[in-house]
Amino acid sequence: MNAPDKLAQFISLTREPLPASRKIYVPGTRTDVRVPMREITQSNGEAITVYDTSGPYTDPQATIDVRRGLPALRESWIAVRGDTEGYPGRAPYALDDGLKSGESDALAALRTQAAGLQRTPRRAKAGANVSQMHYARQGIITPEMEYVAIRENQQRDWMVQYLGNAEREKRLAGNSFGAAIPREVTPEFVRDEVARGRAIIPANINHPELEPMAIGRNFLVKINANIGNSAVTSSIEEEVEKLVWSIRWGADTVMDLSTGRNIHTTRDWILRNAPVPIGTVPIYQALEKVGGVAEDLTWEIFRDTLIEQAEQGVDYFTIHAGVRLPFIHLTANRVTGIVSRGGSILAKWCIAHHQENFLYTHFEDICDIMKAYDVSFSLGDGLRPGSGADANDEAQFAELRTLGELTQIAWKHDVQTMIEGPGHVPMHMVQANMTEQLKHCGEAPFYTLGPLTTDIAPGYDHITSGIGAAMIGWFGTAMLCYVTPKEHLGLPDREDVKTGIITYKIAAHAADVAKGHPGARARDDALSKARFEFRWMDQFNLSLDPDTAQKFHDETLPKDSAKVAHFCSMCGPKFCSMKITQEVREFAKTQGVSEEQALTAGMETMSEEFKRVGGEIYIPISKA
Amino acid sequence: MNAPDKLAQFISLTREPLPASRKIYVPGTRTDVRVPMREITQSNGEAITVYDTSGPYTDPQATIDVRRGLPALRESWIAVRGDTEGYPGRAPYALDDGLKSGESDALAALRTQAAGLQRTPRRAKAGANVSQMHYARQGIITPEMEYVAIRENQQRDWMVQYLGNAEREKRLAGNSFGAAIPREVTPEFVRDEVARGRAIIPANINHPELEPMAIGRNFLVKINANIGNSAVTSSIEEEVEKLVWSIRWGADTVMDLSTGRNIHTTRDWILRNAPVPIGTVPIYQALEKVGGVAEDLTWEIFRDTLIEQAEQGVDYFTIHAGVRLPFIHLTANRVTGIVSRGGSILAKWCIAHHQENFLYTHFEDICDIMKAYDVSFSLGDGLRPGSGADANDEAQFAELRTLGELTQIAWKHDVQTMIEGPGHVPMHMVQANMTEQLKHCGEAPFYTLGPLTTDIAPGYDHITSGIGAAMIGWFGTAMLCYVTPKEHLGLPDREDVKTGIITYKIAAHAADVAKGHPGARARDDALSKARFEFRWMDQFNLSLDPDTAQKFHDETLPKDSAKVAHFCSMCGPKFCSMKITQEVREFAKTQGVSEEQALTAGMETMSEEFKRVGGEIYIPISKA
Repeated sequence: MNAPDKLAQFISLTREPLPASRKIYVPGTRTDVRVPMREITQSNGEAITVYDTSGPYTDPQATIDVRRGLPALRESWIAVRGDTEGYPGRAPYALDDGLKSGESDALAALRTQAAGLQRTPRRAKAGANVSQMHYARQGIITPEMEYVAIRENQQRDWMVQYLGNAEREKRLAGNSFGAAIPREVTPEFVRDEVARGRAIIPANINHPELEPMAIGRNFLVKINANIGNSAVTSSIEEEVEKLVWSIRWGADTVMDLSTGRNIHTTRDWILRNAPVPIGTVPIYQALEKVGGVAEDLTWEIFRDTLIEQAEQGVDYFTIHAGVRLPFIHLTANRVTGIVSRGGSILAKWCIAHHQENFLYTHFEDICDIMKAYDVSFSLGDGLRPGSGADANDEAQFAELRTLGELTQIAWKHDVQTMIEGPGHVPMHMVQANMTEQLKHCGEAPFYTLGPLTTDIAPGYDHITSGIGAAMIGWFGTAMLCYVTPKEHLGLPDREDVKTGIITYKIAAHAADVAKGHPGARARDDALSKARFEFRWMDQFNLSLDPDTAQKFHDETLPKDSAKVAHFCSMCGPKFCSMKITQEVREFAKTQGVSEEQALTAGMETMSEEFKRVGGEIYIPISKA
Repeated sequence: MNAPDKLAQFISLTREPLPASRKIYVPGTRTDVRVPMREITQSNGEAITVYDTSGPYTDPQATIDVRRGLPALRESWIAVRGDTEGYPGRAPYALDDGLKSGESDALAALRTQAAGLQRTPRRAKAGANVSQMHYARQGIITPEMEYVAIRENQQRDWMVQYLGNAEREKRLAGNSFGAAIPREVTPEFVRDEVARGRAIIPANINHPELEPMAIGRNFLVKINANIGNSAVTSSIEEEVEKLVWSIRWGADTVMDLSTGRNIHTTRDWILRNAPVPIGTVPIYQALEKVGGVAEDLTWEIFRDTLIEQAEQGVDYFTIHAGVRLPFIHLTANRVTGIVSRGGSILAKWCIAHHQENFLYTHFEDICDIMKAYDVSFSLGDGLRPGSGADANDEAQFAELRTLGELTQIAWKHDVQTMIEGPGHVPMHMVQANMTEQLKHCGEAPFYTLGPLTTDIAPGYDHITSGIGAAMIGWFGTAMLCYVTPKEHLGLPDREDVKTGIITYKIAAHAADVAKGHPGARARDDALSKARFEFRWMDQFNLSLDPDTAQKFHDETLPKDSAKVAHFCSMCGPKFCSMKITQEVREFAKTQGVSEEQALTAGMETMSEEFKRVGGEIYIPISKA
């Protein structure tokens, strides 16, 4: 079986819609704005709409050919603005794929394989700025912004029925730590958030396949999944399959962290098949181009790499411009030194040349590239702590303050910017990360890796970090970079990726609920209601991972009849608390009184009536 | 294979000491106080001692015969106090094991099987009170208290080497939310904490096999694992094996929640083989005795069950005395009603009889039993919320205030008491649970189930709840009741139990670190140091689950040589940030200067020297 067939087979495994779900498209004000969502139908006829990151893959109507890529959804939106032009683009080098110059046959073979995926690159016309932030600041609401507004609302009407009484609403209102989450997200609200830098819409003009999404404190908390081959393992096919698998389970963006061979071509495959923003760390590829010798890196090689990747359509770049020469010595007494790959590469370069980090000195040059393609900054935290012992130290916070300065420069160029954060942080030090970031970075979206709240559980770092991620998400972090069980130990496989994503969907959703995001809790309530009413299949289908929920239930009670049984294997029929409470509700209903009446009024007579009817339930006064 | 042989084989699987670990015994002031700990030897010769819940099972010197039970460690401590007496005990009934009276042959067979496990029960002499709280209040330091003090200290000397500089210590000092954790735990401190009710040492005089431990806000955060068969699944052998498996991975106490047949005999097996406190919910067995008909429960049947279990040696009882008749109607408008099994049973009884909960009206009678055997109260939260929507409502808090009143009554009788807490609580409402508990329950230890911070992830509720558990542990909860991945779906199997326990060890440890518990962070630092120095085996061995850590590493780099390699499969050799930072450290060492000097001084000359030596590393001034 050759590679593309193997890939097609891989992908086909993940195209099945999730159980009881169908893809719907919510129209905007124009016919070419159609926002996909997932509608889950319950056994009681109620339908619930949820945010859907899975792209066309889960739409049975969509024709998918991974050798041709997804439809260019945004092509006309970009073209009609009239501020971009197609151009031949940079010539390909063998080196782009980590090949030596003699290996041009290998390059040709790779290029042929990806032939259907080549697009003519576009860039801003001379003097133009094509960033969403630039449009926003001019008062323009782009189709991307309208798309995001519809998407964030998730057809919130259905949520109303799950809202309870006023007292309960008040109690559950949440604490958003100063965020300003509106009851309804309008296109104008999105524009304003992007204009002031409080949200970004990563959307390279060379990634027209993208379904636009926003990252910002006043939107739903997002999660990122990392994929990428390394010198030791993995292949192109696996990486594309991991992309499709990741978005199936809810990854809002995907970072391609490949460092091995074929990275240019891998990226072509990923981008052309990605409905979510793709981020990269360009210094990885630049380092490959200089044979892995950090001190041989130059601004020219790096610049060339930025353009190469911008032409391909990468939506955001991690740029470690805050790893400044004067900060490096601050890591000397750390328990775990520098643990960011990019950070250590640049630290090595700075020391070897005894010069300031060229990403810092060339920052405005980088801005010029970013705004010509609308690539967003993800300002990297190269000096983040690699252990709880190093958390919140001067190295980390000196870099953070620098990222704040750089944010102001990026904003001067109308370049969209978010800020990366740690890492490894004990619980009591998590909140300071958010408050410092808000203080120094002007509310630019924060994008953290975890943080891990303890270091003693390799193999379970999705959990050590899920704790910190939920907390910092609540405090205001806009996007959480997932951590898989294999962190610190090896590269994640398919199951690890899924586990990492589900864990981070939990953290993000728990954060949304705690922030009081309008309607976030409604899905919890719908599932709880299904649970209480013993609608087992609905409980599974409303969950983040229906497959696992049903599999676990099947393990002890495999029969179909158990899926409607009014008990489960945990307590058995006699001990089911929900069943007992259920009995009250149903009796009250047959008596035409409210449950509260049934329970509050006339308790004196209940005992008699209870014995008379030989029932299992409380008796309302009206029957006495 | 008959049942005992199958059991012996099960147990043998879990007797292997953890990797690089050996059991040590730290002596107290008397020869019969020998506190077991686990010593982990690192490849660099350093040894680290950690808290050990696994009992004699992991001691290769110990002879284990599960048909005879563990040695009666505390027998002489109890006898020498002279305030107890042996007595024939209550006669066994077929009903104790859920058998009908005609099934006496089956009962005889069960009893024969457990023959080696029968002990003559003891109770307090007339008028005596044998609770640890009673001794503590009289100023007596029992061997149990000394044992606990030594145990909590974990031979803390080794931790000193991992403490960093003063600035770092200050930064990492933690925030204990008003707890009063001493630098060193003395026997007198333990006595004082028990005397004032701020800690309990669950230690029934009929459970002399127990290795004493403490539950309290000023001690290490503990975790509980639930085991127990139900009408639908499981067997005696599996339950005992789950006990041994649970304590291997760190369960500090175990609750036997069996509800099916053979529960009396199952409990005999569990108690005689348990080095940790065993808790139960006696109402479950009482309900079995009345054929599952809640309204047929009587105080006499319940009282008989308490004595039956107290004679067997159960260390703490969950008693749902706070489910008062006037509170039940407060659950009427809940999304998920009453979700505690015990709570729903008692609610049903209250309504059927229209009488106040007999556990409430007979509370002082229960105290009399508790103090005759030193059984601790775990005052159950029968009205805890079963969904985020019901969190912190009036039903929950009305019950909590009642538990506070009952605590005062229990303390009047010198009966040790802890308070159970929820359940399902969104993050922003977690802290209120702790502050309300502290306010109303006089600092009696809080013992919570999770809480789950979102309801949308059945199959992953160890994670949804691990987040809440870590937070509430930090805020002051003394013991965290684990939740497994199967929660809401089915009974946990062996792997689920382990996953639940490791998740909760993470939560408890993250809480200890955030509280600033002296030395808690030292294990993090030791592991981080091993990680940074590429001592892979040490990293695995210091972790909560060495087997999984090594297995994950083996999956991508199975060779032994990879266990000393200065890189891993995640980034490969060229991109390893730790390797790069490492190079600085080692070079500095060979030059006889500190790393800080190497990094801070003479940067101007580094570039030249770097090129001259052709090295990979920074160059210190002293070489220039």
